[in-house]
Amino acid sequence: MADAETTARRYPGRLIVFEGLDGSGKSTQAQLLRKWLAFRGYRVFFTEWNSSDLVSDTIRRGKKRNLLTPTTFSLLHATDFADRYERHILPPLQAGYLVVCDRYIYTAFARDVARGCDSGWVRNLYAFAVRPDKVFYFRVPVQTALARKEASRQKISYYEAGMDLGLAGDAADSYLAFQGMLKREYERLSGPEGFQVIDAEQQIEALSNEVRRGIRPLLDGFPKEEVLVHGS
Amino acid sequence: MADAETTARRYPGRLIVFEGLDGSGKSTQAQLLRKWLAFRGYRVFFTEWNSSDLVSDTIRRGKKRNLLTPTTFSLLHATDFADRYERHILPPLQAGYLVVCDRYIYTAFARDVARGCDSGWVRNLYAFAVRPDKVFYFRVPVQTALARKEASRQKISYYEAGMDLGLAGDAADSYLAFQGMLKREYERLSGPEGFQVIDAEQQIEALSNEVRRGIRPLLDGFPKEEVLVHGS
Repeated sequence: MADAETTARRYPGRLIVFEGLDGSGKSTQAQLLRKWLAFRGYRVFFTEWNSSDLVSDTIRRGKKRNLLTPTTFSLLHATDFADRYERHILPPLQAGYLVVCDRYIYTAFARDVARGCDSGWVRNLYAFAVRPDKVFYFRVPVQTALARKEASRQKISYYEAGMDLGLAGDAADSYLAFQGMLKREYERLSGPEGFQVIDAEQQIEALSNEVRRGIRPLLDGFPKEEVLVHGS
Repeated sequence: MADAETTARRYPGRLIVFEGLDGSGKSTQAQLLRKWLAFRGYRVFFTEWNSSDLVSDTIRRGKKRNLLTPTTFSLLHATDFADRYERHILPPLQAGYLVVCDRYIYTAFARDVARGCDSGWVRNLYAFAVRPDKVFYFRVPVQTALARKEASRQKISYYEAGMDLGLAGDAADSYLAFQGMLKREYERLSGPEGFQVIDAEQQIEALSNEVRRGIRPLLDGFPKEEVLVHGS
């Protein structure tokens, strides 16, 4: 039974989470950490938000038809996450892997609350998911995140810009306003949830070093893969 | 914003809910009440569980591929309900209709808890939905419900029989066991939720009379449609 209580049981793996705005550099660092851990001989499993295919069609369809309210939007993403959680996060944790997540439940907390859902309600919605062993929060000015986004020539999507909230007529203005709301939620969660806050405006090597230093205590005595033992 | 708090606001309509096991006669009575109310000149809106098409494909696909855990099963149905609620239940309530629901959130409470979800978690999941003005709970022995189901030559579905829970090898035995679990949940909810309990083994006319008597206090001073005024 995968209910809130029983999934909170102990597991031999470790859950390492990267959170932050788009353009904060967290995805790059999550990938670098995965490679570094694998190279050092640890069993690593990497997963990112929205990789489940159970409800992706429905989300796409609902977005296209503009059918989603904040509640259904939130519930659909929770379903998607729950599916991914029970297939791709919990099993490797139970099998003793280091699980690296690019976004976790805090992404939903920030986004759903920014869209107007009650924060207690959203928190309970995700009560089935275990608390991570480590959360890195990549703090970045919203303006920097937008500049990086624009530099990468990625298109800003309607929902990413929070255009459904009617914050501004222009996509870039709406993006700034919505990402600002997400940032405020992350900042609010930061203390109570024990995030390790990382100044994401540093150089890529400085960021990697900070992440590696942050992860070290977790690796203390954590077993390496038996077959592939690299020098540490 | 359709969050837990704001949807709890007042509305001019009335919400009337029918709950009970399959074969309890609740659907027949819900339809009879709808006709009776319409005949008497009230604006009535009828809706039943699982009429939304937003996630029905996903539910079908998930069931077919046996992909659903109790948590994802519960979340998918909550998404489906939220979509229906925000399109087909809340708007007519706000427009001053008598809304008759064949199954409401209590169906989810009973089913999800029987499948092993935490009852507090499920309750919060549906916190966006307003409390009904009236809930009729059709109490029936599980054996009677099964006999009616068999008499109607309806096929017992895999999930309706709770076969996914491994309660019994045989569909009829599993159905009895699972419906028994649902009944226990309904009985547990009955007092705290203020259900009007109806002995569903009575004749159809006796049941109708009991429902009409139960509904009368709600109709006191409730406005009728202006165009179609029938004699009362």
